[in-house]
Amino acid sequence: MTDTKTLSTDIQEFLQSATAEEKEVLQQFLNGLKQKHAGDHPSYVSGWLQAEGKWNEDGSYQMRIPIHKGIQNPLEIVHGGVTATLMDTCMGTLANHSTPAEKAAVTLEIKVNYLKPGKGNYLYCRTEVISQSSKTLFLTSTIKDENDQTIAFGTGTFYVIDFLA
Amino acid sequence: MTDTKTLSTDIQEFLQSATAEEKEVLQQFLNGLKQKHAGDHPSYVSGWLQAEGKWNEDGSYQMRIPIHKGIQNPLEIVHGGVTATLMDTCMGTLANHSTPAEKAAVTLEIKVNYLKPGKGNYLYCRTEVISQSSKTLFLTSTIKDENDQTIAFGTGTFYVIDFLA
Amino acid sequence: MTDTKTLSTDIQEFLQSATAEEKEVLQQFLNGLKQKHAGDHPSYVSGWLQAEGKWNEDGSYQMRIPIHKGIQNPLEIVHGGVTATLMDTCMGTLANHSTPAEKAAVTLEIKVNYLKPGKGNYLYCRTEVISQSSKTLFLTSTIKDENDQTIAFGTGTFYVIDFLA
Amino acid sequence: MTDTKTLSTDIQEFLQSATAEEKEVLQQFLNGLKQKHAGDHPSYVSGWLQAEGKWNEDGSYQMRIPIHKGIQNPLEIVHGGVTATLMDTCMGTLANHSTPAEKAAVTLEIKVNYLKPGKGNYLYCRTEVISQSSKTLFLTSTIKDENDQTIAFGTGTFYVIDFLA
Repeated sequence: MTDTKTLSTDIQEFLQSATAEEKEVLQQFLNGLKQKHAGDHPSYVSGWLQAEGKWNEDGSYQMRIPIHKGIQNPLEIVHGGVTATLMDTCMGTLANHSTPAEKAAVTLEIKVNYLKPGKGNYLYCRTEVISQSSKTLFLTSTIKDENDQTIAFGTGTFYVIDFLA
Repeated sequence: MTDTKTLSTDIQEFLQSATAEEKEVLQQFLNGLKQKHAGDHPSYVSGWLQAEGKWNEDGSYQMRIPIHKGIQNPLEIVHGGVTATLMDTCMGTLANHSTPAEKAAVTLEIKVNYLKPGKGNYLYCRTEVISQSSKTLFLTSTIKDENDQTIAFGTGTFYVIDFLA
Repeated sequence: MTDTKTLSTDIQEFLQSATAEEKEVLQQFLNGLKQKHAGDHPSYVSGWLQAEGKWNEDGSYQMRIPIHKGIQNPLEIVHGGVTATLMDTCMGTLANHSTPAEKAAVTLEIKVNYLKPGKGNYLYCRTEVISQSSKTLFLTSTIKDENDQTIAFGTGTFYVIDFLA
Repeated sequence: MTDTKTLSTDIQEFLQSATAEEKEVLQQFLNGLKQKHAGDHPSYVSGWLQAEGKWNEDGSYQMRIPIHKGIQNPLEIVHGGVTATLMDTCMGTLANHSTPAEKAAVTLEIKVNYLKPGKGNYLYCRTEVISQSSKTLFLTSTIKDENDQTIAFGTGTFYVIDFLA
């Protein structure tokens, strides 16, 4: 178990030698952790992404995440794993929303095509259910930047399981 | 720019209301950030994963990440996005290692098949280059848990670009 | 080289023992071969499928193929390989149409999600270019049956090469 | 229903104007149809491919198909749809072999990465089951040419259904 005092000292020490960029990344992570604490996220992963969800009237679902140094790769574009995580999170939320309350939907497979570098201030992911049976769901996701450029496209299959509370 | 004093106060305040689990997650993130500061990671994302790489004699490359609350989904299995990120990071490292120094390799597409729930203390990802031309690389990854169970399999295409220093 | 007389005799012999279904399949294949002879198809494969293409005003392209015994699997639904071939052909036609005359576009990867059994009299595949650079194209395809049910969804990446005449 | 006399006349007429290449393609198709008639293939599609299967001692399964004009694209390499069909057929045979007798396995999704042009006299596809549960199977396939060059790699998920006799 993490001791608060030790953790606090650990952080103070880190801050003394941290670069400006590292402090910014820690601040971004803390923002996500506070959102998770406030109940805004089902997982620390979507907290880390600071993902904001929105239901559309046509049944699709979308998420927005802020771009910062903490999610970029060395080429200063959004890390491909983050793009995939955004899709999986967006698809997973919609898939679980689309299954009965006593069931859960887990990812069976996901494919992401990277079309343009992820740059700017935000990424927007829009997801829809294309087909659904009692046991599987198939979804597509389109990720755009703030200039409405499509930067990634994904397809995913989710499998419906009994939720073990 | 992040002000150190404000950040420090922000963290102290958070720690006062944080749950034991949240403190553990913050500790894990701090560990990754310290590793990044020490030069152990090319990106904050692989720092966040606390990924440890290892080159194998057969030319393949592998990465190990510790499993903790911060990377699990609400079902207490490793978040699918984290599994994808581990693969993309492992593939990306090997792909860039396999291209000339003045070039970089970026993900064109990746597909992940989730085979078993990711549980236990660690995940191990082993990646190899299956085929390579002057412009593209094709790689496969197998992720296993500490009991040698295959929990995910991935394929990815990387595209070789001129590195803009 | 195939001797016409031998081939003719060979076919006559086959017809004597052939079942009604086998004769129907041979008839379908012959129809495709005649279409190929007439210049309606760039390859024997699209001839075999008896694919009919159509350009849409929005820049998308679609193909229709008739369903018959010769393209079904033992469960009497369209063979998954035929569905994939229809997509690859439809995508390939649009990809090549979208590249300069001195270039050709070849499939780098394709993924097909099978959503419902392919049944009825026809399959309709609609393909569009989602993103294009000087070296790659990314396309999606939706295959529907005659009742407008989506039976498959596909994504594909094509790579642009110099055409060697 | 196809009338034998009409079909026979139809074929004779076609042969009078057919090119040498078209006769060769018809011969190849007839060979496959005769193999299907003899019970060598579960479907006309694998007959068309003239696929020959072989069980390996390690539990994997492989198929070999001859390359001829009828399965090539205009660039004189094996049509991508044929490569996909070979994989789907090879995976489907192994998947169905690996499920109980009263069940059938159908393709849920397949992804094919094309690595080198398919050329030469034969293609060899080797498939193995990577993971299996009561409801799904995950398989990989590697396709090589006769010089042992890997020309394509595929992954596929099959879904287990009750066989309706």
